[in-house]
Amino acid sequence: MSATEDIAKDYYDYPDWNMENPVPTKVPAEVIPPCDPTADDRLYHICISAISLVVMLILAFLARRMKLADGQKRSLLSPVNFLDHTQHKGLAVAVFGVLFCKLFGLVIAPNPLPFTTDQANKQYWIIVSLFYYPALYFPLLACGTLRNAVGYVLGSLLSWTHFGVLVWQKADCPKTPEIYKYYSLLASLPQVCCLAFLSFQYPLLLFKGLKGTEKTTAGEDLSSSYYNDYVKNILKKKKPSKTSTSTEKPTLVERITDAVKSYIYIPEEVFRFPLKLAISGVVSFTALYQMALVFVVSVVPTLQIVRQGINEDIAFLLAGFNIILSEDRAEVVRIVVYYMWCVEVCYLSAMTLSCSVNLVMLMRSMVLHRSNLKGLYRGDIYNVYNCQRSIRPSRPALVCWMGFTSFQAAHICLGMLIQTIVFFLCLLIAVFLIIIPIFHGQNLMLFKVLGNMWPFWLMLFSVVVVQHVTTRFCFIKKSAGTRDLHNRGSLFLLTYLLFPVNVLIGVVLGVWRLVITALFNIVHLGRMDISLLNRNVEAFDPAYRCYAHYLKIEVSQSHPVMKAFCGMMLQCARQDGAEKKARDAEEGIQLVNQEKKPQHKVSISKRARGHWQLLYTLVNNPSLVGSRKHFQRQSNESFFNGTLNWAAKEGMKKEAGNMEAGKETEAVTN
Amino acid sequence: MSATEDIAKDYYDYPDWNMENPVPTKVPAEVIPPCDPTADDRLYHICISAISLVVMLILAFLARRMKLADGQKRSLLSPVNFLDHTQHKGLAVAVFGVLFCKLFGLVIAPNPLPFTTDQANKQYWIIVSLFYYPALYFPLLACGTLRNAVGYVLGSLLSWTHFGVLVWQKADCPKTPEIYKYYSLLASLPQVCCLAFLSFQYPLLLFKGLKGTEKTTAGEDLSSSYYNDYVKNILKKKKPSKTSTSTEKPTLVERITDAVKSYIYIPEEVFRFPLKLAISGVVSFTALYQMALVFVVSVVPTLQIVRQGINEDIAFLLAGFNIILSEDRAEVVRIVVYYMWCVEVCYLSAMTLSCSVNLVMLMRSMVLHRSNLKGLYRGDIYNVYNCQRSIRPSRPALVCWMGFTSFQAAHICLGMLIQTIVFFLCLLIAVFLIIIPIFHGQNLMLFKVLGNMWPFWLMLFSVVVVQHVTTRFCFIKKSAGTRDLHNRGSLFLLTYLLFPVNVLIGVVLGVWRLVITALFNIVHLGRMDISLLNRNVEAFDPAYRCYAHYLKIEVSQSHPVMKAFCGMMLQCARQDGAEKKARDAEEGIQLVNQEKKPQHKVSISKRARGHWQLLYTLVNNPSLVGSRKHFQRQSNESFFNGTLNWAAKEGMKKEAGNMEAGKETEAVTN
Repeated sequence: MSATEDIAKDYYDYPDWNMENPVPTKVPAEVIPPCDPTADDRLYHICISAISLVVMLILAFLARRMKLADGQKRSLLSPVNFLDHTQHKGLAVAVFGVLFCKLFGLVIAPNPLPFTTDQANKQYWIIVSLFYYPALYFPLLACGTLRNAVGYVLGSLLSWTHFGVLVWQKADCPKTPEIYKYYSLLASLPQVCCLAFLSFQYPLLLFKGLKGTEKTTAGEDLSSSYYNDYVKNILKKKKPSKTSTSTEKPTLVERITDAVKSYIYIPEEVFRFPLKLAISGVVSFTALYQMALVFVVSVVPTLQIVRQGINEDIAFLLAGFNIILSEDRAEVVRIVVYYMWCVEVCYLSAMTLSCSVNLVMLMRSMVLHRSNLKGLYRGDIYNVYNCQRSIRPSRPALVCWMGFTSFQAAHICLGMLIQTIVFFLCLLIAVFLIIIPIFHGQNLMLFKVLGNMWPFWLMLFSVVVVQHVTTRFCFIKKSAGTRDLHNRGSLFLLTYLLFPVNVLIGVVLGVWRLVITALFNIVHLGRMDISLLNRNVEAFDPAYRCYAHYLKIEVSQSHPVMKAFCGMMLQCARQDGAEKKARDAEEGIQLVNQEKKPQHKVSISKRARGHWQLLYTLVNNPSLVGSRKHFQRQSNESFFNGTLNWAAKEGMKKEAGNMEAGKETEAVTN
Repeated sequence: MSATEDIAKDYYDYPDWNMENPVPTKVPAEVIPPCDPTADDRLYHICISAISLVVMLILAFLARRMKLADGQKRSLLSPVNFLDHTQHKGLAVAVFGVLFCKLFGLVIAPNPLPFTTDQANKQYWIIVSLFYYPALYFPLLACGTLRNAVGYVLGSLLSWTHFGVLVWQKADCPKTPEIYKYYSLLASLPQVCCLAFLSFQYPLLLFKGLKGTEKTTAGEDLSSSYYNDYVKNILKKKKPSKTSTSTEKPTLVERITDAVKSYIYIPEEVFRFPLKLAISGVVSFTALYQMALVFVVSVVPTLQIVRQGINEDIAFLLAGFNIILSEDRAEVVRIVVYYMWCVEVCYLSAMTLSCSVNLVMLMRSMVLHRSNLKGLYRGDIYNVYNCQRSIRPSRPALVCWMGFTSFQAAHICLGMLIQTIVFFLCLLIAVFLIIIPIFHGQNLMLFKVLGNMWPFWLMLFSVVVVQHVTTRFCFIKKSAGTRDLHNRGSLFLLTYLLFPVNVLIGVVLGVWRLVITALFNIVHLGRMDISLLNRNVEAFDPAYRCYAHYLKIEVSQSHPVMKAFCGMMLQCARQDGAEKKARDAEEGIQLVNQEKKPQHKVSISKRARGHWQLLYTLVNNPSLVGSRKHFQRQSNESFFNGTLNWAAKEGMKKEAGNMEAGKETEAVTN
């Protein structure tokens, strides 16, 4: 080695290191001038803020007039009802998507707030912008609140403006000097998609509103048939009882199929996600895209520039560190370029892997969300939480509920970061210590070390095999359908003699445990729906704790069976009213009709039916019991004997609260 | 900075770097000559192997004679009954301790096998020695098997020889050149303790045997009162039913007290650990000591030597890296020595922390082992495993059972290694980035970064506070004992507006999750009794899987209630025999006695009593049901109607198997 080294040094001899090439040649980087779009960002934001303000004022005026007209309360300030399963989710999801993209660009962008270019106080401007952008995009949501043609027209105009200006700006300046020339363009793609969706959705709503079909798609929450369908489905479908066959173990193929199936989300007609979960899903997906984009554009172009810039000087540089890759300088360049290419491939693979892992996890989360929600609706609290909890709103639960969507997005981002780093390192090790050595047949250090230790590995392996074989054939006796120990003396002797070897096997097992645990936790870091800790301390995992609290609020406030029940009660009340009116009208004509039922009896039978419906609902949905007033767990027995009739009132009151939140009005004014 | 740098460089000016001190002065290290003890290891091992062989032959001859004499089978080849709760555990535990210490020294020692100094094939010699040492110490166990004065005498002689030679060798050569001069001496301390215990125990057993009191201390498994006490305790103690008060949340102080209590192991009179767990505990403790010793002696002396060797040259060395700590060279030396001292303190603290963590974990494990075993005895399979499993021996379960003790020791070692590294790094960061900067008021980089970001942190904090406060006072309404949402509109609005800020809070939360998860898993790495994975994939953790399997075997084979039952049955049989003999003897004298009971009736009543005992036992210990022959879970109903009488036979057969394993003979020959 030292001989070849000397020769190589003679050969190189630093001929032109200091003379001709004082600085290694560099590939000239493409210089991108700062680009000012025709639609200046500052001017645009001043205009659009003003327009938004005007739109809000018009909407407020309109809302006031409508309120005076039909006496219904419409709150412009809460256009999203997060506790609703049936409303049209598109608008809210799209606005959250736009908002998240803006947020992501905040830190990277040179000017977080378009009104100022003050770099000294950038931090303060970022903080301000964190509140400015939600306010800016608020009218996009609010326009849909009134369910009014004027609102839809304003919404269409506003979304067209947003969309048009964004596209114009990007077409004007596709290249920007930040990070990578096309980064800004690519990063705005999800935003463009969301705005395009809004620009399409508002006219569609307007069109449907004019045709009068809108009610069916975005009808009132309680009068939607979804909840009734859900209840019907529960009552209809009897699960095939598998308890009798649970002792038979499923085959390996079945288990693998089941495992794969549990990672694929297949929508069910009778189950819809709560709005907050839908938003979380879309925002998470956007986060995935944005993170992947940042990872790619911040590293790959640099790597490529470096690779292109490698020339023969690298040979001298490496020789300075006593690394002689080859005696031919061109060969050295070729090798280094090849290695750089490998690094690039590793990086891209790691990133792709991390993306696909997160996508799979996202899908798995959806499956789990559904099963958790369904379980909690059924009252399977123990299965979901692994302990008994009261499904009732509380302060921490509500705070967790508020932040859930955001936390989910943040966890995805963090998870992707960690995953990419870890996968990249693992792949680098695999490539440079295993794959390249195998292909080139040199630098087989790892294999040499392992190869030298082969008697050791062979011993460990054979001891494991011996233990399994002897156990199988000597120490376990099957007789008359039961298994018992046999040859206890030999078993104890073998246990004693193999103690030292088993310690070494234990070390291997421990390393394996370490790897498995680390890998599992890194892969699942972006998921909030499972705890990364042991089952007894699950609640110490802040993300899982938040998810558990989130589920509490969601289930306690938007239980589909409760909603179906409330809807039925309201319908009954409405029918009663209509019936009475019809009766009054008919009474004048058909006085001779002797079929008159006593009014009192009818109301009693109605109330009795209500009681029975309530009872049936509660028996089939025990998780609802906890949310009833005056409910004391200690007095479980006396529960069903208690006052039943106020439950209906309570349900209706709860629903009234829901309605107050801005999702109501059957009459669309057109 | 650059000005002072120039001055410093002028001042240093490399005056005597190449001239006077071509090599930095070194503190002369103490040279320890290789030491040959008077009791040469090679000769000693040849002698002791021969002696051991002779002892085994004598014992075998003795066993054969005793077998001929009283017809009982004694197996010398299985002196340890691992499935026994009541036997005197001292001998087995001590021998395992000695064995583990030997194993630990194997890799570090220059000659793994004392017979050869062949370094080229060291690996093979290590493998051979892995089997040699268990065989070497085997007679120490076997001497106790016969429960015979000759066996005890031989055991005493053997253990005295082992003990004496070891102490002699260590007294001859307290210092060795390996790692640290006293390492060898310190590492052999646990071994010395174990051998001393054996040297004391064998004479004690001999003495007790001669006095005839031995049976009570190390009597036969089934005739021990332990199992009966256990059953009595179960039947006596009714747990206060806490189900009615479980809805009341315990106060914080109570919860903390409970948590602390769950980490302190308080022995209970009516519960004894299985032998394997006792061995695991002692071996784990030994592993802890050995690892701590290796950590200390392999790093601290080196650090101290380096610290003592620091002279003014270090100033030039640092200046070469452009690090100017001070302009006074003596000051530089002082600072560097101080920093080195800090590193040393960090290292020792990390090691101490890791040791105490593992000790606490060991204690917690014991508490958990006990509660798991008790739970499984009770049939609480679901609580222990979080799923239904059949408690029955199987191939993987038995293999895991065989390796459990070894795996536990290996995991403790690995856990300590990882913990020490991680804690060391964390402490280094804490000391050099936080504590030293605060004390010296310089290099406050971290604080500067955090301080510059204060508006950001303040915003995050205030947003969290705002959410909690508004939730508490505006969004949750308490009315008539129940809590419900209130002001839904404002809640939804706030949720929307705080979305971007919550994403940032989510990032902080994610980092916290990462830290908590990593810390928890690192701290619990040495424990096999909990899974480090999520509750749904617990079985993928190899260590926990092994523990779960271990428990299965332990519970299915040494259920105390089953043993008590078997013991009772045997006692009945024995009493029957004795009664019959007494009756035969008395019959000759008291022929006039008219109280003669029909023999047939007695046997029927006995059998009926047996049936009822079996039934009662099974009802109170449902986990035993699964281990009965012909047990079909599908036909649960017909179970108690089935054949009951063979259960007793089966229990006795199982017990006979246990006895076969070398723990029997009531008559000690003396």
